[in-house]
Amino acid sequence: MHINLERLKSDLLELFQIGYSPETNSVSRVAFSEADMQAKHWLIESFQAEGFHAFLDGASNVVGRTGKQQANKVLAIGSHIDSVLSGGMFDGTLGVLAGLEILRTLRDNNIELPVPIQVYAFAEEEGRFGGMMGAQALIGDLTPEWLLSAHDVNGVLLKDEMQCRGLNALDALNARVEPEFLHAFLELHIEQGPVLDKKHTSIGVVESISGVFKWIVRLIGKSNHAGTAPMDMRSDAFMGLADFAHEIPRLISEDGTDKSRLTVGKVALKPGHPHTVPGEVEFTLVGRDSSNEIMEELAKNCRKVLSSIARKHHLMFEFEQMSWLEPQPMSERVIEQIKHDAQHMGFEYLQLPSGAGHDAQHLAKVTDTGMIFVPSVAGISHAPDEWTHWQDIEKGANLLLKSAMSISHW
Amino acid sequence: MHINLERLKSDLLELFQIGYSPETNSVSRVAFSEADMQAKHWLIESFQAEGFHAFLDGASNVVGRTGKQQANKVLAIGSHIDSVLSGGMFDGTLGVLAGLEILRTLRDNNIELPVPIQVYAFAEEEGRFGGMMGAQALIGDLTPEWLLSAHDVNGVLLKDEMQCRGLNALDALNARVEPEFLHAFLELHIEQGPVLDKKHTSIGVVESISGVFKWIVRLIGKSNHAGTAPMDMRSDAFMGLADFAHEIPRLISEDGTDKSRLTVGKVALKPGHPHTVPGEVEFTLVGRDSSNEIMEELAKNCRKVLSSIARKHHLMFEFEQMSWLEPQPMSERVIEQIKHDAQHMGFEYLQLPSGAGHDAQHLAKVTDTGMIFVPSVAGISHAPDEWTHWQDIEKGANLLLKSAMSISHW
Repeated sequence: MHINLERLKSDLLELFQIGYSPETNSVSRVAFSEADMQAKHWLIESFQAEGFHAFLDGASNVVGRTGKQQANKVLAIGSHIDSVLSGGMFDGTLGVLAGLEILRTLRDNNIELPVPIQVYAFAEEEGRFGGMMGAQALIGDLTPEWLLSAHDVNGVLLKDEMQCRGLNALDALNARVEPEFLHAFLELHIEQGPVLDKKHTSIGVVESISGVFKWIVRLIGKSNHAGTAPMDMRSDAFMGLADFAHEIPRLISEDGTDKSRLTVGKVALKPGHPHTVPGEVEFTLVGRDSSNEIMEELAKNCRKVLSSIARKHHLMFEFEQMSWLEPQPMSERVIEQIKHDAQHMGFEYLQLPSGAGHDAQHLAKVTDTGMIFVPSVAGISHAPDEWTHWQDIEKGANLLLKSAMSISHW
Repeated sequence: MHINLERLKSDLLELFQIGYSPETNSVSRVAFSEADMQAKHWLIESFQAEGFHAFLDGASNVVGRTGKQQANKVLAIGSHIDSVLSGGMFDGTLGVLAGLEILRTLRDNNIELPVPIQVYAFAEEEGRFGGMMGAQALIGDLTPEWLLSAHDVNGVLLKDEMQCRGLNALDALNARVEPEFLHAFLELHIEQGPVLDKKHTSIGVVESISGVFKWIVRLIGKSNHAGTAPMDMRSDAFMGLADFAHEIPRLISEDGTDKSRLTVGKVALKPGHPHTVPGEVEFTLVGRDSSNEIMEELAKNCRKVLSSIARKHHLMFEFEQMSWLEPQPMSERVIEQIKHDAQHMGFEYLQLPSGAGHDAQHLAKVTDTGMIFVPSVAGISHAPDEWTHWQDIEKGANLLLKSAMSISHW
């Protein structure tokens, strides 16, 4: 039994048109935008057109399943259909539409599973208001306080944006289900990294979702005229940052693993003029690893190195820890099942951590959870060039079907 | 014979009120703004109130002198009265108002010099349209093409802005004087650097104005998700910049002198998101030295290091040389005269290069030119905290008077 690639492909291409910009060949379905809502309704209609039952839950998650009657226990499959600004075709959508295709395939083959499948398109995964809101709502991790105060970078409140779309933010609290209701959770997703593509492997079995910490670091020295201030009389904040960044490979090689990441992604110099020694620099440092102990070790040593460099350059050093998310291992039992099924289907696979966050990391707190990755060409994602070969899409979706069937029989 | 500090102080404080912002205790008289024009007219009236003759020349330089009749040859003294945005009280203004005070002092003492003094407040020194426009007009270095096309960072054309103020940009060509008309040029200025202040020395005798080159450098790698891209599969443009900046102290110690400067003042990362490996960085590199050979050596080795780092990080390396101004030595004869006069007056002095550019660097191309520096407290300039002690102002102005008298007798 196999999924029908043509149907899945046609769904992916159709959904890509909602929020599509021809100038950049990219899609923008930022959470709770018009395009995002339009996509939710398109998805509900797509379920209904096949005779399935579908609806929006309180958190604005799209839920689709075979029968009208709610089962006592479901095998959840899903991902998200909101996108970043100017994103690509596959991020999130693949895991949702593969779920729909699996429902169709099972129906076409007259198969009724012991635990029925329920497909989820989780709301606000990409982070406009913090990210993974729908998944957190499902496991009961949201609070009224957060729902009323969450806002995007422009200061738009989640509750106001939801109201605009005819939704009530506090209804998200009604989306919570009992942990026992969830038999397991499976998410098929593009890797969004280069590992599978580089190793010419179609399938990744995710062992854990890396933990991540985000710091905002400030080094404060003194602005000076770049001509009049001798090199040895400067407190050049940028030179402090440069010296720190230069140490990153050493920090990782001494304290990290091949799963560790340290990234300086955003840098702002003050005053930021060519002829002025930068008196202040603010930058982000994002650290990741699949072990919390290693994350702590890396964080500790980043602090040490920053302090020592600040002293050397006569700078003040401040940092704010914006977030610290612990690594989330996937269920051993699910990992073994997926590997077993992949082997059985003759698919080569690689076991790897997920460097990016996914809805699965929240589901994993309450139920057996696993993720399947398919390769991203050149590792590109969150960009118009995001691509995954159709053959890999097909393999991934077929493995998802196989493992869902296996796990339903546990 | 001495200048009258109270009069000079009162002028400096009065001029500081034009374009003054009480919130930041700073002054903004950007070239050809309303405040700049108001300051020019205030200055003309200040000359006239003392019975001197003053006018705007074609380049909108304020010119002031004792008699109505133009001499065949003048000893030019001056600087500028435009300011940067949110600047301080002394930058430029000191050299102009000290000129006015010297005219008053000579008059009060009934002294007529063999070569009369002509005081200049040069237009647009600070760089809104490129800088030192008035000084360049005087020596005939401007072209009609440049005058009609020069614009500020907002795209406002010089010619349009001048027209708004009732001026004709092409009239700047009429401001040119014959080289023989200029007996010499003297400029008193604040150091805008920390050297005199650190060494507790009231007088700096400028030996040369450092040359300066400005590059815009681009390192181009690949943007990636900061979680999914392993450290060894990245082409992180920022890490290339960090490695380069880390080499700057070595480059200067191997190829430069204590007068060399290399500054990264402006940095822009693309896309500049905390969770994305920066695929591109554009930054400015400004190099300075008082020897053109050393500047060339530094530039050559910056290129080499950047190329090698780009290769190591799998980056493309591009740079544009925005400008290359050769160092401008001051006149040996003027330097010796100022040193002699300082000694005679019992003032300690330090001979030093000027890291910043000044109107004097253009005048030096056509006439014997010298500069006197007074200390900037903590080296701060182009900022509200710009300060010079009144005792140093007095010493500087008295030395300017003395040397002007000496040089007039050459």
